[in-house]
Amino acid sequence: MDLTKIKDPSFLKRLNNEQLVELSSNVRNFLIQNLSKTGGHLGANLGVVELTIALHKVFNSPQDRFIWDVGHQAYIHKILTGRAGQFDTLRQYKGLCGFPKRCESEHDWWETGHSSTSLSAAMGMAIARDMNEEKHSIVPIIGDGALTGGMALEALNHIGHEKKNVTVILNDNEMSIAKNVGALHSALGRMRSAGKYNRAKDDMEWLLKKIPAVGGKLAQAAERLKDSMKYFVLPGMFFEELGFTYYGPVDGHDYQDLFEHLNYAKKTDGPVIIHVMTQKGKGYHPAESDVKDKWHGVGPYKIESGEKIKAVDAPPAWSSVISEALREEARVDKRVVAITPAMILGSKLEKFGEEFPDRLFDVGIAEQHATTVAAGLATQGMKPFLAIYSTFLQRAYDQVVHDVCRQNLNVVFGIDRAGLVGADGETHQGVFDIAFLRHLPNIVLMMPKDENEGRNMMHTAMNYDDGPIAVRYPRGNAKGVKVDEESSMIPIGSWEVLKKGTDAVILTFGTTIDMAMNAAETLTKQGISVRVVNARFIKPLDEEMLHEIMEDQLPILTIEEAVLQGGFGSAVLEFAEENLYREQTIKRMGIPDRFIEHGSVSQLLKEIDLTEEAVAANIREILPSKRKRA
Amino acid sequence: MDLTKIKDPSFLKRLNNEQLVELSSNVRNFLIQNLSKTGGHLGANLGVVELTIALHKVFNSPQDRFIWDVGHQAYIHKILTGRAGQFDTLRQYKGLCGFPKRCESEHDWWETGHSSTSLSAAMGMAIARDMNEEKHSIVPIIGDGALTGGMALEALNHIGHEKKNVTVILNDNEMSIAKNVGALHSALGRMRSAGKYNRAKDDMEWLLKKIPAVGGKLAQAAERLKDSMKYFVLPGMFFEELGFTYYGPVDGHDYQDLFEHLNYAKKTDGPVIIHVMTQKGKGYHPAESDVKDKWHGVGPYKIESGEKIKAVDAPPAWSSVISEALREEARVDKRVVAITPAMILGSKLEKFGEEFPDRLFDVGIAEQHATTVAAGLATQGMKPFLAIYSTFLQRAYDQVVHDVCRQNLNVVFGIDRAGLVGADGETHQGVFDIAFLRHLPNIVLMMPKDENEGRNMMHTAMNYDDGPIAVRYPRGNAKGVKVDEESSMIPIGSWEVLKKGTDAVILTFGTTIDMAMNAAETLTKQGISVRVVNARFIKPLDEEMLHEIMEDQLPILTIEEAVLQGGFGSAVLEFAEENLYREQTIKRMGIPDRFIEHGSVSQLLKEIDLTEEAVAANIREILPSKRKRA
Repeated sequence: MDLTKIKDPSFLKRLNNEQLVELSSNVRNFLIQNLSKTGGHLGANLGVVELTIALHKVFNSPQDRFIWDVGHQAYIHKILTGRAGQFDTLRQYKGLCGFPKRCESEHDWWETGHSSTSLSAAMGMAIARDMNEEKHSIVPIIGDGALTGGMALEALNHIGHEKKNVTVILNDNEMSIAKNVGALHSALGRMRSAGKYNRAKDDMEWLLKKIPAVGGKLAQAAERLKDSMKYFVLPGMFFEELGFTYYGPVDGHDYQDLFEHLNYAKKTDGPVIIHVMTQKGKGYHPAESDVKDKWHGVGPYKIESGEKIKAVDAPPAWSSVISEALREEARVDKRVVAITPAMILGSKLEKFGEEFPDRLFDVGIAEQHATTVAAGLATQGMKPFLAIYSTFLQRAYDQVVHDVCRQNLNVVFGIDRAGLVGADGETHQGVFDIAFLRHLPNIVLMMPKDENEGRNMMHTAMNYDDGPIAVRYPRGNAKGVKVDEESSMIPIGSWEVLKKGTDAVILTFGTTIDMAMNAAETLTKQGISVRVVNARFIKPLDEEMLHEIMEDQLPILTIEEAVLQGGFGSAVLEFAEENLYREQTIKRMGIPDRFIEHGSVSQLLKEIDLTEEAVAANIREILPSKRKRA
Repeated sequence: MDLTKIKDPSFLKRLNNEQLVELSSNVRNFLIQNLSKTGGHLGANLGVVELTIALHKVFNSPQDRFIWDVGHQAYIHKILTGRAGQFDTLRQYKGLCGFPKRCESEHDWWETGHSSTSLSAAMGMAIARDMNEEKHSIVPIIGDGALTGGMALEALNHIGHEKKNVTVILNDNEMSIAKNVGALHSALGRMRSAGKYNRAKDDMEWLLKKIPAVGGKLAQAAERLKDSMKYFVLPGMFFEELGFTYYGPVDGHDYQDLFEHLNYAKKTDGPVIIHVMTQKGKGYHPAESDVKDKWHGVGPYKIESGEKIKAVDAPPAWSSVISEALREEARVDKRVVAITPAMILGSKLEKFGEEFPDRLFDVGIAEQHATTVAAGLATQGMKPFLAIYSTFLQRAYDQVVHDVCRQNLNVVFGIDRAGLVGADGETHQGVFDIAFLRHLPNIVLMMPKDENEGRNMMHTAMNYDDGPIAVRYPRGNAKGVKVDEESSMIPIGSWEVLKKGTDAVILTFGTTIDMAMNAAETLTKQGISVRVVNARFIKPLDEEMLHEIMEDQLPILTIEEAVLQGGFGSAVLEFAEENLYREQTIKRMGIPDRFIEHGSVSQLLKEIDLTEEAVAANIREILPSKRKRA
């Protein structure tokens, strides 16, 4: 069938199992074809084809509410709710979002991107439903990884306590070879092998029958035993302890098994967990045999071979630059330990883990815990490095404040994916970290201009012993510059003049240095002499250099790929105010006060007017009038 | 014995149980006496007298590391580690901190204040110990309330997985009558009544003996049953599932029981949980019979009667003002729901709960979940109000960004304890919320000057339907002003001139309005005419009024009881920059870039130069030179 003709999921009600199997096959081909051109989260979606179809057949969306945790696995949901025709624009500028999006469809009740939010949202929806005396089902779909995020566990605890009717689908990629972390995963493993428990139940019943039917103490004991039996035989004990009814494990690629358990769940009062086992990448050989989870999020690829279509000879990824620098430091300093919240691959820590298997700790999706583990390590004189995406560090803000900065502990943060990230869109843009870190006492925050400086910053950070220090770096590849033979220390709070100039000064750092340099070149040709400063320390500022500039009354333009409010530019405004430079002209460029959607980074920069042309225009605007005529 | 003579806990090794009981009695009297004068966390400390003494007898601090979760229960630990002599300065300016403090003692390995951090810190310390091939014990002491915080659950999952030697003391106030929340608490309840399970074990063994000893299938079945038995008989199944060895329940006031289990734990390999039952307020009758947990944190009291020594006829507490306003709104709007993370008492929501028992949700210590439950409610058209302390909202920063602001949902935040909080000190100061909220798109942030305006802001917030909106209000009592007959709407982004003036303008809000008004009065007498503006909207700013002021080139002084970096004053600097007011003089007063310790709010304000005198001096400083001579 032509999937682009689907308007809504109601057609599913008429299909028999055979037709559903055919539909699954269609959907898989559609995804493999389309994503080979656009890229996207192939593996996760191939794993939930049958599950999503079964959910839409058994429940009635949008009356029943599906909530897709993390949300990158909602492609089939999008297809079944009338959005197949837009898949050629997936994750592209103004195109179909890679995550659930309320403005796209009434079937998207909840937007995600960050993990572990679905159960809390479901609880809110359940409270509303019950207050309004409505009857619909609320169905969060959460992966085994996301389940160990703290807020998901908080939600389980609360839902179980309130006994709300919520149907949790636990999507357990048991076949995924990427390492699962945490004791709860071991518990899930025991649930998967439920045979053992069921046999125990059989044994018990058989045994009881063997006992001669006498009254008195024996009968009482047998009765009590049967009563306690449920604690004994249930594979989902962990969830039962929290007040949920557990169903499973269910084969997530078998319609019969799915329908049976989903229908049980519909009839069950109170909270339910259906433990569904799925295989990431199911039905596409290169993704099925994906030992390293490289098919989690992909760019374009060749369908036959699974070969990724990539720019050749690209410079190393920023994540690699930083993790390689960390390896160098770890070789000379035994106190170095690396911590990652489930991002060994994303943060390119595989090689570190191979070289130092006892010094890499993947704590699972648990950013709060990761941060405070680092703090705990620091209290014992170790040198913890926490690799974490800017957008996910948001979840550990309180731990950064209360545990790390307040105790002034030597924790090194590697803030990955800082700045605009592109196709993942607004849930993943790393644009707030400067604004949420800069106001914290004790922290040092820096950003390198290239891989050589990045390596030196890592060397500086790992040898800094006066409190927390963070290196932020962007998504994507470094510059491809030559790296020094030996890494060196960068004085804390020191900026660097990249281009001399006497009419105006640009203060910027990281990814926006190029546009500043280019604009300065253009202006030079027009007779305007612009100084460009690599303001690599966002905190502390290079006060000496700022005093010089302000004493000379040179107009300043600040540029940052981060939110303007409370950002680096504001730090410069604050410096001028504190130091009574009341005639000082300062203009700021950065990200305006709204969320930035998906698209290529260059398209997004253009949209928000962070361009070479805008830099040049702004420099012209701030020149003293006598110079404007130049 | 004279407790002030204690230098360190080594003397405990020589005491027998009888002497220990006498010591417990001494410690209780000491606490009851001292806290009757200074105030403090009496109930929690009276509950852990025996537990703390037993821990210090069995373990060897500081080689063994105690980590006190939340930390307000560490008074006995402070006494036993040589700090009894400082208890007359408890929680006072430059005095003994009410929480563990690393600079106070080598026995304080970890500082707390916020809950649920101890297990993550312990994990970090355990990794460090094992890497350094050391052997000491690591002993976090965590309450049953704090255990349900998401990060504590993340940590359990990780510690259980890594099988680290960590000895968790679960301090379960089972006798506390204040309501415990969450399914995990029900599970703890089942553990407490472990008798049932133990009898099941006895029954089973008895039954097996009754079966004739035959070989073959029966013997196999019996064997398998014994093997599976542990899942059946263990009361701590929840923890066992997570990889912990569970001991308990233990009577936390019985030295024999405590020693026995602590010594078991010392000999056990891998992570251990010792479930200790204690009674809050134990040994002081008024606190023991405390049905409303009013003895959790107390001011001075009369020892005999337990009567609190309080200022008479104080105006209502700010928390009451806000929760009363919420009640009014809830009466006319059925969509209003209140959510609190374990702060019904602190946020004064008891009466709301009495009037609307089905519309108040205490989610336990789970700020992240609380925030996203509110977001989930908002997606269904409800009007959720989240009552949360400023310092605890830090833990939900990502949920505010990703779930609430990004989806632009109608969630109302009541940010309690905003500004300096006094005796609780640096872990509890509510000074970051402006800086961590102001840069988020879509949010409205306001602060009232008195209870009448507070009520109107609540009316405004609960009737606002264009996204998230927050009212922040301080700790302590409101002003005692007369309240209007009917509440009214305040136009979003509108400021209010409180005092006219033509030489300079003060922009401030909330608690700092008084010092501004007083300074303005003083200056008026000296011929300087100062306008005072109630800048009650921190976001959005009153742009119209700012344009007027800046067009007139009136110098501006901003004052806020919040961090300066990225704060309200910076918003005014940003406004001037964006609107090209390049000659505008602006000076900012607020909290400098360091953590502020405990003390009375007035002492702290003086320390950081947030005073009437400083306001006057700053106004003089920013006046144009011709006016300075006035």
